[in-house]
Parts: sequence; C-alpha cells; structure tokens
Amino acid sequence: MLKIIPLGGMAVTKNLFVYETDEEILLVDGGIGFPDETMLGVDLLIPDTTYLQNTKKKIVGMLLTHGHDDHIAGLPYILPKLPEFPLFASRLTAGFAAERMKEFSVMRRINIIDDVRGVRLGKFAIESIRVTHSVPDARHFVITTPNVSVYHGSDFKFDLTPIDGVRPDFQKIADIGKRGVTVLLSDCLRSERPGFSASESSLNESLEAEIRDTKGKLIVTTMSSNVHRIQQAAQIAARAGRRIALFGRSVEVNARVAQELGFLKLPKQAMVKKKSIRNIPDNQLCLIVAGSQGQEGSALVRAARGEHREIKIQPSDKVVFSADPIPGNERAVYETIDALAHRGAEVIYHDVNDELHVSGHASSGELMLLMELLKPKYLVPIGGTYRHMVQYRKLGEKMGYSADRVFLLEEGQSLEINMRGEARIGETIPLKNVMVDGLGIGDVGKVVLRDRQLMAEEGMLVVIVPIEKQTGKISGDVEIISRGVVFMKESKQLMDKARGEVYTVIKSIKTPIREWRAVKEGIRKRLERLFSKELERFPLIIPIIIRT
Amino acid sequence: MLKIIPLGGMAVTKNLFVYETDEEILLVDGGIGFPDETMLGVDLLIPDTTYLQNTKKKIVGMLLTHGHDDHIAGLPYILPKLPEFPLFASRLTAGFAAERMKEFSVMRRINIIDDVRGVRLGKFAIESIRVTHSVPDARHFVITTPNVSVYHGSDFKFDLTPIDGVRPDFQKIADIGKRGVTVLLSDCLRSERPGFSASESSLNESLEAEIRDTKGKLIVTTMSSNVHRIQQAAQIAARAGRRIALFGRSVEVNARVAQELGFLKLPKQAMVKKKSIRNIPDNQLCLIVAGSQGQEGSALVRAARGEHREIKIQPSDKVVFSADPIPGNERAVYETIDALAHRGAEVIYHDVNDELHVSGHASSGELMLLMELLKPKYLVPIGGTYRHMVQYRKLGEKMGYSADRVFLLEEGQSLEINMRGEARIGETIPLKNVMVDGLGIGDVGKVVLRDRQLMAEEGMLVVIVPIEKQTGKISGDVEIISRGVVFMKESKQLMDKARGEVYTVIKSIKTPIREWRAVKEGIRKRLERLFSKELERFPLIIPIIIRT
Repeated sequence: MLKIIPLGGMAVTKNLFVYETDEEILLVDGGIGFPDETMLGVDLLIPDTTYLQNTKKKIVGMLLTHGHDDHIAGLPYILPKLPEFPLFASRLTAGFAAERMKEFSVMRRINIIDDVRGVRLGKFAIESIRVTHSVPDARHFVITTPNVSVYHGSDFKFDLTPIDGVRPDFQKIADIGKRGVTVLLSDCLRSERPGFSASESSLNESLEAEIRDTKGKLIVTTMSSNVHRIQQAAQIAARAGRRIALFGRSVEVNARVAQELGFLKLPKQAMVKKKSIRNIPDNQLCLIVAGSQGQEGSALVRAARGEHREIKIQPSDKVVFSADPIPGNERAVYETIDALAHRGAEVIYHDVNDELHVSGHASSGELMLLMELLKPKYLVPIGGTYRHMVQYRKLGEKMGYSADRVFLLEEGQSLEINMRGEARIGETIPLKNVMVDGLGIGDVGKVVLRDRQLMAEEGMLVVIVPIEKQTGKISGDVEIISRGVVFMKESKQLMDKARGEVYTVIKSIKTPIREWRAVKEGIRKRLERLFSKELERFPLIIPIIIRT
Repeated sequence: MLKIIPLGGMAVTKNLFVYETDEEILLVDGGIGFPDETMLGVDLLIPDTTYLQNTKKKIVGMLLTHGHDDHIAGLPYILPKLPEFPLFASRLTAGFAAERMKEFSVMRRINIIDDVRGVRLGKFAIESIRVTHSVPDARHFVITTPNVSVYHGSDFKFDLTPIDGVRPDFQKIADIGKRGVTVLLSDCLRSERPGFSASESSLNESLEAEIRDTKGKLIVTTMSSNVHRIQQAAQIAARAGRRIALFGRSVEVNARVAQELGFLKLPKQAMVKKKSIRNIPDNQLCLIVAGSQGQEGSALVRAARGEHREIKIQPSDKVVFSADPIPGNERAVYETIDALAHRGAEVIYHDVNDELHVSGHASSGELMLLMELLKPKYLVPIGGTYRHMVQYRKLGEKMGYSADRVFLLEEGQSLEINMRGEARIGETIPLKNVMVDGLGIGDVGKVVLRDRQLMAEEGMLVVIVPIEKQTGKISGDVEIISRGVVFMKESKQLMDKARGEVYTVIKSIKTPIREWRAVKEGIRKRLERLFSKELERFPLIIPIIIRT
C-alpha cells in the first residue's frame, strides 16, 4: 500500500508531502507558511514533522519541486530534526534551497536530478518533468512504486513562450499518461479562472510602453524569486539606454544565485552598483526593487517613506508594480502606493494597468489539459484552499471524473492506494501549528496567542496585593498597573474605583488569606464587571499576591 | 471668503466637511471611520470636532448626503458635543440617520430637504440634486454664498436604469453648470476605472441565472444598506416561487426603515419570519443574510461555522456573494467562503462570477461627464485616498484642467475661496485620531496603542520586587509573571535566568534602594538583553517595586 499524506501544502503554505510504503518514506518539498492575523507576533510557520520524527521507517529521500519559499524555506528548520537522507532538485531550485540553508548554517548537499534518467530512492522510482512557473527550472515528479504511479503536479503553468525558451515537456507528460497514472496531485490555486494563463513574455510590450514615457527614474518592483520578470525589466531598461541597479536583500541574493547558475542573464554593461546611482541622471536609471507586497522594512517601503539612503523618490519618477497583492497584503500594498503617490511619483499598479503581471499558476484550461494528457484514475487538488479544490473538482467533472474519483484532502489526512491501485481516504494524523517567533520554534501556542490577542484588543491590568506571610493580612497598598487599557492620566478616577473593588474583596474575607486562588478569582470577577460596565472593555486581569 | 475644510472624508472614512464664512459654518455629513490594523481593539473612528467646539461662529446647520455609515453613523457621537442646529437630508437618509441616533438615545429631528425649493441656512443657499448610489435617495448639494458656488458631489454614480426608476437629475446639474460653479468637490474612489460603471439593474439576469440551478436554499449576502440589491434578490426569488427571510440585525433594520419609507418593496406574500424557515423545504427558500464582508459575529459567518440557530448550511445550498470585499477585508471574506465550501455549499463569489455585483461609485466616464456638465473653475477630489485623487487629477487634465486648478486636500487642510472666486490652499487644522473603544471615546491614544501593539507581538513580563520600606532591602522573592511570551511550562529555565538577572541588578546596588527609577531601568535593560539574546523577542517589561 502507498499512503500520501500532506503535512502541509493544502494552501499556499508550508508544503511537505509524505509518500509512505510499508518500509519506506519519500518526502516532497519542505516549505514555510505565513501567519494569519490571529497569530500575533509570529514570523512564520513550519510543517509539523512529529510524524516523521516518530516513525521507524526509513526516509529514503526528499524531492524539491521549485524554488519558492513555501516549498524550500522550511528546510533549515526541518532537516536538523530528521535523520540524514539524500535530497534532489533541479539546478536553480537546489541553488535557492542551499542559499536558504546557508543563512542558518545548515549544510546539506542537494543533488541535481537527472531529467533523462530520473532517480531511484529506495523502492521509489522517480522521473522529473520540466514545467513552467513564476520561478524558472520548476519540476513535476512521477513517483512510482511497483503497483502505483503518482504524478506530483505541484505549482505550474503551461507557458508556450517562456522567457528562457524552455517549454514544459509535453511529450514526456503524454508518455507518462500513456503508461498509466493512478493519482494526479495537481496545483489548483487558479482553478477559478477560465481559459489559459497568459505567457510571461506577453508582458514585454506593456512593460516597454511604461518605460517609454518615464521622465525620471523607472522603479520596477516584483516578487524577488521571479527571475524572468527581473530579466525582462532589465532588458527593456537596457534597450531604452538606462542603467540598472538591484535593491533589496531578497532580490539581490536571488539574482546572484540565478546568474551564477545561468538562469538570469542581466545586460552586463548596463548594470551598476547601488551606490553609483547618485552619479547617474534619473532619466537614465532603472531600479529593480524588492517590496512588491508592501513588506515592512523592504527597500520599496523605505523609499516610499523617504527613509531609504539611496532611493529618493522624485515627482518625475515612475513606480511599476509588476505583481498583484497576495490576498491579505492588500492594505500594505495600497498604503505603499499611496505613500509613493504622495511623494509625487507616478504609480502604475493592477487597478490602473492590469497588463503588468501574469500569474505563474495554471488556469482552468491548463488544469484540464494536464488531466487529459495524463488521464489519471484519481484526482487530488493541492496547493489551494478549500474553495479552490471545490472549483478543481468541478473541472474534473467536466472532464468526466465523478466526485468519488476526486479527493479533497485536509492537511494530515492520508490517501491510501492499495495494490490494485484503488484509492480511499485513510486515517488523519493530528498536526499542530508550529510557529516560529524570533529564535523560538514551537514555543508559541494557543495559550500564548490567546493572551496576546486579549492584550492587543483590550490591554491588561496587573493587580498587586501584598499579604503578610504570618498574619495573612494585607501588608501594604494595593497597586494596579494598566497597559493598553486607557490613558493613565484620564483614568485616575477609574483606577481609584478599581482599587476600591479590590479592597472590598479582601475585606470580605474574614479568615487569614491563604486561599490565594479564591481571592484572585474574586478580584478578577469584580474588576471584569467594573471595566465592562464603565468602558465595555475586557482587559486581561492578572491578580498577583505578594507574600511579605 | 469661504473656507472648505474636510475634518474627515479624504478616504472612505468619517466624512465631515466644514463650509465656513466669516460668521457662519455649515456642515456636510457626520460619519464614522474604520480602524486600520494598527488600531488594535478599536471599534471605530469619529471625526475630530475640536475645531467646531472651539469656534465662536454660528453653526447654521448640517446636510447629509446619503445613508452610508461613513456619512451618518458618527452623528450620535458628534451632535451631543455641538450646539443645536437644524439637520437636512433626503427621506431615506433621514430615516437611516434617525435609526443610528436612536441606538444611542440621541434624539434630534432631521428635516426633509425640498428638492425643488432647496433650503437657506444662515447666508448659505442650498439646492439638492438627486443622484444614484448603492443606497437609494442619495443627494448632491450646491452650496452658494453671495460670491461662491460649490457643488458638493459626494458618493454617486450615474445609473440610467436604477431599480426604482429614479434617475440622476441631469437637467438640474446642467442648469447649475450654466449658472456657474466655482468648485466641484467630487467622489473619486473609482477614478482608476475606465468607462462608466454598470447599472444596478444589469445584475438582474446573472442573479436570475444563479437561482435557476439552486437545488437547496439560496442564500444571498450583500451590503446591508444596499436596499435595491435586497429588493432585486427578493423579487427574483419570489418569481422563482421561493419564500424569503431576512437575517442579520443590519439587514433587518435597514429593510424595515426602507420599507416604512417606501424605498423597498418586498414581495409581501413571499416574505416569512426567520423562525418559520424550518417548516419550509430548502428548495423553496431564499435567505438574504448580512455578513458579505466576513464580519465577525454576522449571521453569515455564524452560519458558515455551524453556529447559527436557524441557518443550517447544507450541501445542496448555494451562497451568492453579491458584494466585493472592501480592501482589507479579503482574508475574512475568503475564510468565510472556504468555511461555507467546507460545509458542502456551492459558493458563488467575485472570482468565479464577476457579474453579481456592481459598484455604486462613478468610474472615469461619469466623473468626466460631471465635470463637463458643471464646467467648474476648480476641482477637488474627495472620498478617495491619495492614489485615487492622483488618478482624478489625470482625468481633469484630459478635460483641460491644468494641475493648478485641481486641489488635492489632506484632512484638516482648508481650501480658501476669496470674493473674486479664486481658490488657494489655506491653513491646516491639526486633527487627532478620535478612536472609539467600547464606551470610551478618545481615551485610546498613541501610548495605549503602542503598548497594545507591543504586547500583541511580543507579550509582556511583569517583574515584582518587594522592598522593605525601612531598610530599603529586598524583603521577599522576586516574582516574574509573563503573558504572551512563551509557554510557561517550556520556559522555567528561562524564567530562572531572568530572576537571576533581577537579583544581579539588585545586588549591584550597595545603598538602600530608594532610587526606584534607576533600579527599574536596570531591570528593564538586563531583561531586554536576555530575551533578545535567547529568543529574539522584545516583550513589554514592567518592573514593579512593592514597598512592604
């Protein structure tokens, strides 16, 4: 039997897929996830690998599909927890992954997968298939056990005119289909969109048009892993006689790695160092800048606020957003646009020109074409949230797949495929949210987040009651410290009332105070009532009894 | 001289415009604003009326443009702070405003404006003009002083086929243009969009198509003030033989008021009470439900979570979102969609069908048409953020307005128009953010928010050091309470270290401890260093010295 278990990856987040037979385990991807707005102060999420740490089975290897952070940036957290095993990826993916690991001083060799011969890991036979995506050198994998063949169709689109001319390997996909596929795991993120996604090279003209009438600096921002977009912008700028500089750590690192490996060809004579831009007239400059999602601290956001040392926004400048906001980032993106507009720059973004970005994900047409080429027995949408999976299932229906041949998995839920190639939903592995906050991994949990949320929304009160050890009597003044509740100067009267309530609780206790719990509970209740009545607020109340 | 000062309203937020002559003041609108993600725990914003409270001039009245909360829901907060003056609005706007005030027991009569005769308030002559918007009975105003004529073109679109057949009064607008307009204040929120906004009635067919193939309940959600959308959905459902129930306080209140005033005509025989729906088969039901923005606690969100008493989502149900997410609400909306999809319902929303909602705001075409009809001397975009104003200025340029005839005002910045009808930017009134949190108005400020933010992201530590009054020596154990930092059980070692640091600080002080400030500062610094080194976290540290 083969089990497929997503430990993450059922949205654009912390991809980690487990392929498990009776003796062996093969892993695909090891990415990070992004906290939602309830995860206050959390930097990122990583997949819960408890299942892998507890298994006695042999992990025979790991495959990486492409170089996006939700597929590779979890490696420095995940790998040290697991026994050593070989890793395989395409050249650029390996380069990006090695860079992520280097930042954490995690040193693991990543083997380059041979697209012709494939690789065998334990009893798993693996073939890799070139596909196109918003980062170059992406791969799909066919994972075959003696009885079952699974097509792992991670993030992709079918671009017939990619910037580097390296088209998806349709022939190979068709061949695999001919040999027979049991399960197709398929990207489904853009299953809501009709037709085919536009080609990366379709942007050429609209980018060119934008540069033509730019009087001052042209500033282009895009996702920093979108190597081909960076290349397009640079080439167009160079043709227009502009010098080009890259700004932002992520853009610079990715460009360096991609250049070293031959995936990015920047026009050498046109490239200049960041510091040199002050010596070049604005109308001869093109800056490619990180921060297209309005990220706090990014080069673009600092420039928009007038806080960037080198990039000074001028009214003659034009800023082109060659990226759409990822859902949840809209507010940050629009704030950045407004700030740039405030400095007088012309800002071009999706709402005023929708031909400056294309998605890297397959639309309905491509998703249906992949089904048709592979003719798998079963479909499993991955890489999208539930609504995307539902839309993917509808596409499946159009292609003749009845609902019982499409499996919508939850994270941790396993798909079991028996020797006869019959699939069914198996058991669900309990997973926890592993949150990374600063240097702490997994030490922030529900309780910590609940407290943070409460303090964030309502503030908190610390009530300190000094009690004499011997007598059990109050031995000093009750102190109340509040933070995040109300202006202290405006709240004197209220705090006096609050202290009064605390004294009332203490006086009501006739015996020596040793039942700390009851006293604390009493204080908490009375103060909750007071603040709810006076302010309709519900601060976190922490009574502390000091024994002196 | 006439001064125009926006105390709010330079985005979709807390509209309040001041028209001021040497002796008198006229106000337009009194709305609420919505907190951004840095305003933790804040419920809503209201305009800062300090300027009005301090003026000796006579406030001669207030006009209300339309019944949206960002234009009227601030009244219960604003009016009690100001002297009494007459209010004027259209019938539905007056009805909605009265409802908002009733909730706060603020009783003020709102006069119905006479569209034929207009009204005179002090020396201001006012005419009202019917326009169309996403709430019925919206108005523009012409405000005329002896020398100056201002067209107050608040939120609108030009809908030639509105649901109630009441078209914008183009004749009157043209007439006003002929008489001469000094300044046009104009909605600019959709200045990025080309062409003309689609008519409300263009949705009829697509809504009808959705209902046709609904097997179970049809659930429609829209903005609760969108009376005509509610009417369309109800009529279509009734024609399809379904019974209709309204769910959600805002929808129910608005529908009641609009019906009483004749602006909403629900098919009487088809309407049923909420409780009766359990007796009606799903395929004969249409529920019109509040919560299109994924609002916490709304009927739709509770239903999506399986927590609504009456609305049980079934796999045969269809949920239609007849509203787009307002920027910033995307995550909440998509979470609601995913939750509904999880319950098996078919969910129809913008990404799968973009013909289920039209905007209530004018696109470029309508904005340019309004300029052309009025031929004002100056343009002032309102109701949008800076990027929208910049786009509006571009439209002005296309219509022959040089940049010096278009004024982009900040909130608080005044436009001064002299006796000869010449406009220029005047002084800026300092405004503060007045935040409403529970029952507290304006008692949450920068300090409180900064503390909330810090506690939200990093948590907090309270360090309690008992010191004996007489001797100035430590008189008990140091206690450290943490909330929102790390799991307490995982942090014992760390807390021991922290206590150690505190003792080190105290021991380093040789004299009796009376210099509380220095001790507190020392504790704070050492603990900051410890937590930064161990966890890269920066909790709020509150040292407390208890004298016993």
